[in-house]
Amino acid sequence: MSMAARRTIVGRIDGEILKFTAGDDIKLDLELVEADCIGSAAHATMLSRMKPPVLTPAEARRIVAALVSVMKAHRAGRFRIRLEDQDVHLAVELRLTAMLGDLGRRLHTGRSRNDQVATDLRLYGKAELLGVIEEASLLAESLLDMAARHLKTPMAGRTHLQPAMPATVGLWASAYAESLLDDLEVVAAAYRLNDRNVLGSAAGYGVPLAVDRVLTCRLLGFERPVRNVLHACHTRGKNESVILAALAQLMLTLSRLAEDIIIFVMPEFGYFEYPKEYGTGSSIMPQKVNPDAAELVRAKAAVVAQQAAMACEITRGLPAGYNRDLQEIKKPFMEGLASTRASLRVMTRLVRGLKPNETALRAGFGAGVFATDMALRLVSQGVPFREAYRRVKERLPELKAMDPDEAIAMRTHLGGPARLDIGGMRASAGEWKKFARTRLERYHAAVSNLLGVKYPQLE
Amino acid sequence: MSMAARRTIVGRIDGEILKFTAGDDIKLDLELVEADCIGSAAHATMLSRMKPPVLTPAEARRIVAALVSVMKAHRAGRFRIRLEDQDVHLAVELRLTAMLGDLGRRLHTGRSRNDQVATDLRLYGKAELLGVIEEASLLAESLLDMAARHLKTPMAGRTHLQPAMPATVGLWASAYAESLLDDLEVVAAAYRLNDRNVLGSAAGYGVPLAVDRVLTCRLLGFERPVRNVLHACHTRGKNESVILAALAQLMLTLSRLAEDIIIFVMPEFGYFEYPKEYGTGSSIMPQKVNPDAAELVRAKAAVVAQQAAMACEITRGLPAGYNRDLQEIKKPFMEGLASTRASLRVMTRLVRGLKPNETALRAGFGAGVFATDMALRLVSQGVPFREAYRRVKERLPELKAMDPDEAIAMRTHLGGPARLDIGGMRASAGEWKKFARTRLERYHAAVSNLLGVKYPQLE
Amino acid sequence: MSMAARRTIVGRIDGEILKFTAGDDIKLDLELVEADCIGSAAHATMLSRMKPPVLTPAEARRIVAALVSVMKAHRAGRFRIRLEDQDVHLAVELRLTAMLGDLGRRLHTGRSRNDQVATDLRLYGKAELLGVIEEASLLAESLLDMAARHLKTPMAGRTHLQPAMPATVGLWASAYAESLLDDLEVVAAAYRLNDRNVLGSAAGYGVPLAVDRVLTCRLLGFERPVRNVLHACHTRGKNESVILAALAQLMLTLSRLAEDIIIFVMPEFGYFEYPKEYGTGSSIMPQKVNPDAAELVRAKAAVVAQQAAMACEITRGLPAGYNRDLQEIKKPFMEGLASTRASLRVMTRLVRGLKPNETALRAGFGAGVFATDMALRLVSQGVPFREAYRRVKERLPELKAMDPDEAIAMRTHLGGPARLDIGGMRASAGEWKKFARTRLERYHAAVSNLLGVKYPQLE
Amino acid sequence: MSMAARRTIVGRIDGEILKFTAGDDIKLDLELVEADCIGSAAHATMLSRMKPPVLTPAEARRIVAALVSVMKAHRAGRFRIRLEDQDVHLAVELRLTAMLGDLGRRLHTGRSRNDQVATDLRLYGKAELLGVIEEASLLAESLLDMAARHLKTPMAGRTHLQPAMPATVGLWASAYAESLLDDLEVVAAAYRLNDRNVLGSAAGYGVPLAVDRVLTCRLLGFERPVRNVLHACHTRGKNESVILAALAQLMLTLSRLAEDIIIFVMPEFGYFEYPKEYGTGSSIMPQKVNPDAAELVRAKAAVVAQQAAMACEITRGLPAGYNRDLQEIKKPFMEGLASTRASLRVMTRLVRGLKPNETALRAGFGAGVFATDMALRLVSQGVPFREAYRRVKERLPELKAMDPDEAIAMRTHLGGPARLDIGGMRASAGEWKKFARTRLERYHAAVSNLLGVKYPQLE
Repeated sequence: MSMAARRTIVGRIDGEILKFTAGDDIKLDLELVEADCIGSAAHATMLSRMKPPVLTPAEARRIVAALVSVMKAHRAGRFRIRLEDQDVHLAVELRLTAMLGDLGRRLHTGRSRNDQVATDLRLYGKAELLGVIEEASLLAESLLDMAARHLKTPMAGRTHLQPAMPATVGLWASAYAESLLDDLEVVAAAYRLNDRNVLGSAAGYGVPLAVDRVLTCRLLGFERPVRNVLHACHTRGKNESVILAALAQLMLTLSRLAEDIIIFVMPEFGYFEYPKEYGTGSSIMPQKVNPDAAELVRAKAAVVAQQAAMACEITRGLPAGYNRDLQEIKKPFMEGLASTRASLRVMTRLVRGLKPNETALRAGFGAGVFATDMALRLVSQGVPFREAYRRVKERLPELKAMDPDEAIAMRTHLGGPARLDIGGMRASAGEWKKFARTRLERYHAAVSNLLGVKYPQLE
Repeated sequence: MSMAARRTIVGRIDGEILKFTAGDDIKLDLELVEADCIGSAAHATMLSRMKPPVLTPAEARRIVAALVSVMKAHRAGRFRIRLEDQDVHLAVELRLTAMLGDLGRRLHTGRSRNDQVATDLRLYGKAELLGVIEEASLLAESLLDMAARHLKTPMAGRTHLQPAMPATVGLWASAYAESLLDDLEVVAAAYRLNDRNVLGSAAGYGVPLAVDRVLTCRLLGFERPVRNVLHACHTRGKNESVILAALAQLMLTLSRLAEDIIIFVMPEFGYFEYPKEYGTGSSIMPQKVNPDAAELVRAKAAVVAQQAAMACEITRGLPAGYNRDLQEIKKPFMEGLASTRASLRVMTRLVRGLKPNETALRAGFGAGVFATDMALRLVSQGVPFREAYRRVKERLPELKAMDPDEAIAMRTHLGGPARLDIGGMRASAGEWKKFARTRLERYHAAVSNLLGVKYPQLE
Repeated sequence: MSMAARRTIVGRIDGEILKFTAGDDIKLDLELVEADCIGSAAHATMLSRMKPPVLTPAEARRIVAALVSVMKAHRAGRFRIRLEDQDVHLAVELRLTAMLGDLGRRLHTGRSRNDQVATDLRLYGKAELLGVIEEASLLAESLLDMAARHLKTPMAGRTHLQPAMPATVGLWASAYAESLLDDLEVVAAAYRLNDRNVLGSAAGYGVPLAVDRVLTCRLLGFERPVRNVLHACHTRGKNESVILAALAQLMLTLSRLAEDIIIFVMPEFGYFEYPKEYGTGSSIMPQKVNPDAAELVRAKAAVVAQQAAMACEITRGLPAGYNRDLQEIKKPFMEGLASTRASLRVMTRLVRGLKPNETALRAGFGAGVFATDMALRLVSQGVPFREAYRRVKERLPELKAMDPDEAIAMRTHLGGPARLDIGGMRASAGEWKKFARTRLERYHAAVSNLLGVKYPQLE
Repeated sequence: MSMAARRTIVGRIDGEILKFTAGDDIKLDLELVEADCIGSAAHATMLSRMKPPVLTPAEARRIVAALVSVMKAHRAGRFRIRLEDQDVHLAVELRLTAMLGDLGRRLHTGRSRNDQVATDLRLYGKAELLGVIEEASLLAESLLDMAARHLKTPMAGRTHLQPAMPATVGLWASAYAESLLDDLEVVAAAYRLNDRNVLGSAAGYGVPLAVDRVLTCRLLGFERPVRNVLHACHTRGKNESVILAALAQLMLTLSRLAEDIIIFVMPEFGYFEYPKEYGTGSSIMPQKVNPDAAELVRAKAAVVAQQAAMACEITRGLPAGYNRDLQEIKKPFMEGLASTRASLRVMTRLVRGLKPNETALRAGFGAGVFATDMALRLVSQGVPFREAYRRVKERLPELKAMDPDEAIAMRTHLGGPARLDIGGMRASAGEWKKFARTRLERYHAAVSNLLGVKYPQLE
């Protein structure tokens, strides 16, 4: 592609400014090549079906075929984005023009780059979010497996890290499973907002052409279009921050689970055996097996939370219409998705590998853990609770330990250690997995239909 | 209430530590008095219906009546929370004990303070969120009114703040309306997660009593209970951060609207007349009428975004079970709700007061705004878009302005300036208003039923 | 004061907008009454000494005397800020006008409210920061006392919370002391930036009067004036965010110390006895003594960090000159200072109360803690370190514990457990205490001189 | 290097966990190769001079020479960090072992990887911060040049974006220069804290060897060592967050300057001509020249502020000693430095290219801008200011514009438009430039001396 062609589009830009404005896009956009080609395929197809059409059906098919070849080239490592291209959009357009000549020069009719990147990020986000949902449901299942295996294994419940009440490994593990299921409701709300078509909003003000936004919506497998074209433009930044805020919730759940693991694998507890092959050693201390992975999850939860705040802040107070500030959100958005997914997978591995040590867990039951049970025993004898509480408190040194198993067996109310609905939660986890898989299949079917080759295989 | 009674419960605490740990609770909790009494009424009622019952029906009724009298005292400004009370929960319990003697001492059977505060915050959050939803729908309606009144009033669309394309006040105003409608989906997801009963989880590990969590759920008008009791405890912090993150989205929308107002009321634009009585003056410059309210909304958007991050961070990495850290979330949570609601109301006022100045708006259409239209005119003559773009670019100085009305009339595709679905959006806004109102009524009906007096009137 | 007088200055503002724009200022500003009066005294005095003077010396003295009476009224609880006053500045001005008639109306010559609030916040910040410095040095001293008392008490050093190396309570406690001393360098840099006079910048563009900014600088005891008046205006927001960022460093140090306390007072460790009167109980569990104060410090560290981010974000991207957004920083600024100071005081109390349990501490030395010592013993016999490391690692089960005291005694290099420079650090802490005290005295002397009464006594 | 050698050190780690824990280090660490080699050179040299020595002087020299060859290989693109290496430290050690055999295996005596990475980041940070300081002083100089060229060019000062008072381009430009000079004081405080040696703290608890930390301090050109070895470990995270918070201040200054540029290059103002070659076009709108670079600076200010918060949060609440969480700070730390430097350079370019348009600037002076001057004219005739203010306010429509030049000429007090101390500020900027350059030279001299080859040339 000649420099001249590029310059027509982007003008002559000072080299340092170009480098600054292109930023990391030329690297990050490599992740968006497929989404960009898919979006362009939908646009080209639409251009051939609008009234009056801008392309003939044959022209549209030629463009789509060229886009598929770009996707293949990309998969083969033969697609580059040069600094002068600025981003994936121009890189693909220039490649098409090199392949198709004037036909390539007609593709951009009625759309803008902002339009494209917004579409790309939504397609990318869609697939990633479905991956998140599946991976979170797998982790929930692993936690439920652990809970089922150790449904009645005693584990002293703590508050303020101090021993508090009789509880079980089952209660502990399934609490995190239910937390993930709640989080998925937040993720699903983000998914639904993301699952909307913005293509056709051009630079945020529409075009004097009869572009068919409902058609591209259907071609791309989105649930429905964003209506107002300026709002379509304004969803950039907001959409990413809604998604990152949802991911931050998953990471919060993981961070607490990670903290528990870090604490309970200390030799002073030994509640869980940390699998050696999941720990890392020290360069100086030969004895060390450290739960680094759990620590990194804890830290990444802070990273994702701040990435959500970053997306919010970059968007805040921008004047109407597109502003370049939004480009800075691409990186935290893509990184936030990637690190949430990696954290989910790693925690699943850790949970599957953790081995509860029942002896150590039982040793954690001092007499104090049963103080409330003692007070409630007095209540059952007619003593007002506050009076019972007072009596137990005054005779703490005389307090005797109860049998943990008996104490646990008495907690039979909904959600208590003796009445965990593991089956019900497993069913919820299964539904989320199905939610993710069916939607991914539908998306692949829509893309296959659009490209005329089986996706994601491209065959 | 004697100090002795208090000490039984809270022990002897060093004065400075007490002040530090009680913190702002003794002030903030005044907002939670009603929620706390309602929660206690549900608990007492449940204690009289569980098997075996801890209270007789008559005892439960006496407690509920006493709680209603506390609520009335509070409304009359006769309920205080002392530092020694630490929080609203002990303050109410001690007041009840003063009124009911031993019966008061029996109320706390089978629950903990954390249980109570979690319940209080969910009841408080429920009413507040419904207020948010109603107020956001009213602002959306005001924006749609403005859009309808100025459906075709030309307004140059901008990107990067530079004039970009022909657009309208209608497009501009309804873009923000649609943004609010999207935000409400995020708020509604937060509402649904919040609308769950945690009461009965005690200290996060349940109790050896047959507490009926489904019954309290129904009595309090929650949609369903959180299952696992440890997870019920873990939703503290997460629930607030989900809500704050949702509010941050509304504030993002308002912040951009505010920015536009600030810019477009500058004398260099004069697109909108800022109502004098909504502006504030300067103490030194007699000529000033400043859009302070809009500036404060812009700033409060940053505040709410960081409050969301704060709630996340405080919760992150906490070990299982309750930890006192969570108390620090109460303030940003309550303040975030309050400032979002105040911002929605103030923006509604501003939007209703803003007067578009059509002359000034039309003056904003330089020839450049029509450059894309010119290029697309060439396209319609068969020129490939990139070539058309190049030709227009090369002859920019010769570019002539078009008639804005004509240019706007050509943007007839979905969501374009000439095809805004104001009616459809108005219907959506109306549904949200109804969503909020019916749920608030249902909540009030449940509470009325529980307390045996009409709520919120308490008569 | 008549409404008319007020309206002259602030115009007629819609009630709801007024409430929104005044916000919490009418409460927060009660903390600024003294600073505001002191600033006004300096301004009045300057007006009488500039060429040509705007006030006679006698007039200036009358104003200063009236300001002192306002300060006394405030201390006696007889000074209110009404919503209609908007803020402390108008409240004081109106009170002066009520007392002095036309003379009061002349005080505002050549200054603006933004000028005043910027000055007030710097005076307030100055006193608060000196308080922070003194309190941090006292905490450092308490930690050094603990270190000195337990200079050689063994305590297993940990990394990743896993036992790592032989160490001591002395090393542990003095590490936090040195951290505070480092933090104070950041605080001192913030202090120096804050210690500059902005008074006289008016609305950020100066005035056509020969105001003497060097004189007010001297009268107020500031080190030097900010030069450019627009920059003086722009330091608002930045100054607060620099201070909050410095406080966040202190809080970071406290948060880690707090975490250690929370962990090491668990019964599984028992390294430290947590003083009962500093713990809080549970409303349901009679046996509980929880380290709530430490947990709250950990949480407040997150709050202050986000308040720093808040101040940054509110300021970011504002156009030149004053913008009302900055008002939103007042609250996190004042709260951040208050909670840092409270946290420092509470941690000092905790540190003084903590009792190391040597038996428990020694029990924490498993054989693994000495693995590195073993490897280095092989090194001293000529084995390359990597080979020594490998040999020890392969025979970990055979590893025998060493005598902790001997192991500690061998760590004699700078800053190692056997060579802690407690005396040197104590001297540094003492210098910081002196830094704070002498500067506070100097400030009080300047104010006393300005007001003509002894400050802070006002006698 | 055989896998066996690697496994000796790092153990057998599950592949996915390894990938997760190594994270981006294998990429980021490529930036740290030189710092790592320099740190190792100092450690080796010290090992040969301590008593008793661990290496002979000849052995130390062989290691240093090998390290220089690694640096050269790196510069030539022939140094890779493999996933199995985990990080630069093991990669270099394994390379040395491959070159030197057993001698390479002896280098790690008495140090740990955490020790190394902390040292590397401080060396890296030192050079970067000196770059920041130089680049900020160059931007300040460019702003001062602009101020000097347009010392008296009128420019209406604004508050709340509304015209406020007469001012000048000189005032505006030099305000930002002074802001940078203030920021540099914060940066310098961070620089000084960073300029300390942590090498020799091993895993945070020292070693039973007479390592000479004062010697490595001198060899590396640090100002002084951190004392307590545990504190040395604890400065990780804190050090980065102090630096990022300082950078956030510079970015705040740039963000406001950027905002002004974005606003004042709008055609409605035309105060400045934005250089075409620094603007970017649109892919759809031929007429566009957008100030993208300024927008990106505005956004990057949010990014850096949140990166500072991220570093804080990741560090907050960690238990004593090293925790892997800290690794997550490396990326925001390095990126924050890079984007601040890039922003400084780009803004310098923009400022040098901006051309004030005096006609447009003068056109911005409506009559209202002079209202305060009018009121003060009445004051000079004996009218109390508040009365004068009222009179002007009541007759605003009759207000006449004054001559801007005259109005400006009257603002002669310190820092006012007619008394800007450009020379003084230029001197300050020059001192900062010198500060940076002399320190960089000193650092290079120390490294040259250590390596025995001229640094940074490596010749």
